[in-house]
Amino acid sequence: MDIIRVSGSSRTAAVAGAIAGVFRENQRAIVQAIGASAVNQAVKAIIYATNFLAEDGIEVVFVPEFVDVEIEDKIRTAIKFTVEPRVTTSVPMTTTSLDSF
Amino acid sequence: MDIIRVSGSSRTAAVAGAIAGVFRENQRAIVQAIGASAVNQAVKAIIYATNFLAEDGIEVVFVPEFVDVEIEDKIRTAIKFTVEPRVTTSVPMTTTSLDSF
Repeated sequence: MDIIRVSGSSRTAAVAGAIAGVFRENQRAIVQAIGASAVNQAVKAIIYATNFLAEDGIEVVFVPEFVDVEIEDKIRTAIKFTVEPRVTTSVPMTTTSLDSF
Repeated sequence: MDIIRVSGSSRTAAVAGAIAGVFRENQRAIVQAIGASAVNQAVKAIIYATNFLAEDGIEVVFVPEFVDVEIEDKIRTAIKFTVEPRVTTSVPMTTTSLDSF
């Protein structure tokens, strides 16, 4: 699965479309940003993507973490956002009910 | 529940401590930031708070959204991050198992 790399000049609508597309295909997406401006664009794109996916009835949540990435022989700290489905509490009750029979 | 407001000059460790503290008390926390620098500080603080709470075995996820806030009679768009528990798929199986007796 490709990582979606966001810069400070990335268009949020385009990034949001990419996030939603990758998520629909893989049930998750990874977005990576380095620096305040890129992180801000990434968060805005994530909000738009959340809204796109909500229109399809898909609820997503995010987990951010630090990751070290090497760029032109230098180690830089990026922020990686993992977009995941919101795990629901709905349970296949029929499976357990069958025990009663 | 108090909203945790983050600025570009907020200390991430202090904000992270506030997030973890509010979350422990309320099972959720709300963080609000306006502008790229503040959003970046908020995301970093959220990562630290995630790590603090993980040490207690608490897993959290985030949902960002846009909100309009009024500051000095002007409407500005803030980013609001809701920190929520990760809903687990663990089910109280004993409850349904009792049907079998």
